[in-house]
Amino acid sequence: MKKAALITGGAGFIGSNLIKALTKSFDQLICIDNLSRGKKEYLKEVQNLHFINEDLSNYNEIKRHIDQLQTQFEIDEVWHLVANSDIPSGVANAEIDLKDTFLCSHALCKCFEKIPPKKIIFASSSAVYGDMGDALIDEKSAPLFPISNYGAMKLASEAYLSAWIEKTKSKLIIFRFPNVVGTPATHGVIYDFLRRLIKDKRSLQVLGNGFQMKPYLLCDDLIQIMIFLKSNIKNKREVFNIGPSDAGVFVKDIAKTACEIAGDSETTINYEDNDRGWIGDVPKFKYDIRKLQQAGWSKELSSIKAIKIATKQIFNQLKN
Amino acid sequence: MKKAALITGGAGFIGSNLIKALTKSFDQLICIDNLSRGKKEYLKEVQNLHFINEDLSNYNEIKRHIDQLQTQFEIDEVWHLVANSDIPSGVANAEIDLKDTFLCSHALCKCFEKIPPKKIIFASSSAVYGDMGDALIDEKSAPLFPISNYGAMKLASEAYLSAWIEKTKSKLIIFRFPNVVGTPATHGVIYDFLRRLIKDKRSLQVLGNGFQMKPYLLCDDLIQIMIFLKSNIKNKREVFNIGPSDAGVFVKDIAKTACEIAGDSETTINYEDNDRGWIGDVPKFKYDIRKLQQAGWSKELSSIKAIKIATKQIFNQLKN
Repeated sequence: MKKAALITGGAGFIGSNLIKALTKSFDQLICIDNLSRGKKEYLKEVQNLHFINEDLSNYNEIKRHIDQLQTQFEIDEVWHLVANSDIPSGVANAEIDLKDTFLCSHALCKCFEKIPPKKIIFASSSAVYGDMGDALIDEKSAPLFPISNYGAMKLASEAYLSAWIEKTKSKLIIFRFPNVVGTPATHGVIYDFLRRLIKDKRSLQVLGNGFQMKPYLLCDDLIQIMIFLKSNIKNKREVFNIGPSDAGVFVKDIAKTACEIAGDSETTINYEDNDRGWIGDVPKFKYDIRKLQQAGWSKELSSIKAIKIATKQIFNQLKN
Repeated sequence: MKKAALITGGAGFIGSNLIKALTKSFDQLICIDNLSRGKKEYLKEVQNLHFINEDLSNYNEIKRHIDQLQTQFEIDEVWHLVANSDIPSGVANAEIDLKDTFLCSHALCKCFEKIPPKKIIFASSSAVYGDMGDALIDEKSAPLFPISNYGAMKLASEAYLSAWIEKTKSKLIIFRFPNVVGTPATHGVIYDFLRRLIKDKRSLQVLGNGFQMKPYLLCDDLIQIMIFLKSNIKNKREVFNIGPSDAGVFVKDIAKTACEIAGDSETTINYEDNDRGWIGDVPKFKYDIRKLQQAGWSKELSSIKAIKIATKQIFNQLKN
């Protein structure tokens, strides 16, 4: 039987890049996306694609598609990326992350009750750790006290997937992402800064005091790491922090980079007094990526380099 | 304004004992229970009780009650005990723990959006840790890979509550329970063994090989510990493993105790070959309770003593 991989959220920023990276490894790629932020055109060059334009929480519809596809393909891998990616919106209205993140994970599993995939690869987040202050965060850092509903529903999904595979032969690989940057950008700090500067280059308003510090990774590097790791998994359940080799960059450095590219010598940057951008924003975190390195990943990756490359890429995207 | 505490699942085994223990500390106690396992009669001696016979997931109904009560009382403490307590049922049908555990936590928070309580005290479980083999489990043990949907939805609730309080002044105290025994029993291993023996004392069938080993605590001791701890909390979020001083007892010892009380010298005990009672059963776990002790709890508590006392209590309950 022909081999397939299913990517949920596959028309989004990370998902579309992932599909392109996986296209040669499978006979068929299947994408589920409701196109809320994603776009079908991001995938136009992919030949072996079956596109399902549906909200993943619509169990009955999704189930019908998957049942039908499983008569033709062995869906070996499920990459589960669907989530609400707008963190502040989920703090204001808890229904958003519940429905768009957690209940989607729930519905997805339900669709695979009959024929579970060999591997479920889940896009989790540093947000599951909550605010750990200056601690270096590794995969065993605990207790987990998320401070945004985004992080809570990612953790809830991890837990649900972990329990769900118990009655199957499936393996679960959880990747806890840092901030990921690149194109096609649909949201995020660089995207926001550039859009504002393109509208008005006289000044840039930053949420928070600019001293929020986080690690950043280019989407291409993230995908390379994930594909590298997923082939070497031995345990039934595995979790990896994915991040660059450094401790990250300040938001003020991102603002300056954005101004260099989309502003001019007159652009003023305005900060707020508070140390975080919004309720639920983790002002700083540092990843310990030794587990990633011990698994064999040796390429050095820099946050500021990622920011500089992504800012140029996104500027070009927005200008076109 | 008069002070109140709300106990969800307050007509159940642990909840009804908790309400009795709290009755003198508050002007009013409020119990929400759908009476699926609990009974109103367990609370008949409690004078200052307002009983709401509703399923906690019925947001609109519960909200109406809470809004009305908050015009008369300051609901300072919310003890959230509602959950599906039948672990195997939730492995077979994931909707059960989703609805009866997680979505109840979600609905509860939503009811308190306007006037959050000072403290939310959540009855979590050792099941959030999954199967950690021979490791001694403390509150920082990780990663958390629950193997039952019961454990997953407890962890999801922890995460949700943690994120929800971020925008409030509330504190969150998470207690991760061991196996809790006593009366009025509504479920559990002792209850099952005794019911079977009362029906037929010739033989007792045990799920698993009898070598599952877990810590047990009497409900009265659990409640004393929780009330002791909740007064001494300084952090916004806190988590405690609650357990006895020892590593636990074997299921075969519980079976023997049950036979001593409800069987006779002829009773044979039959075991299965497998090391766990059902899919999702954690065959053994050991709690590190040093955090509990460092917080000032010094009473030594024994699992086998808890089993012996509870078996007598439950036998009397079932005989009456």
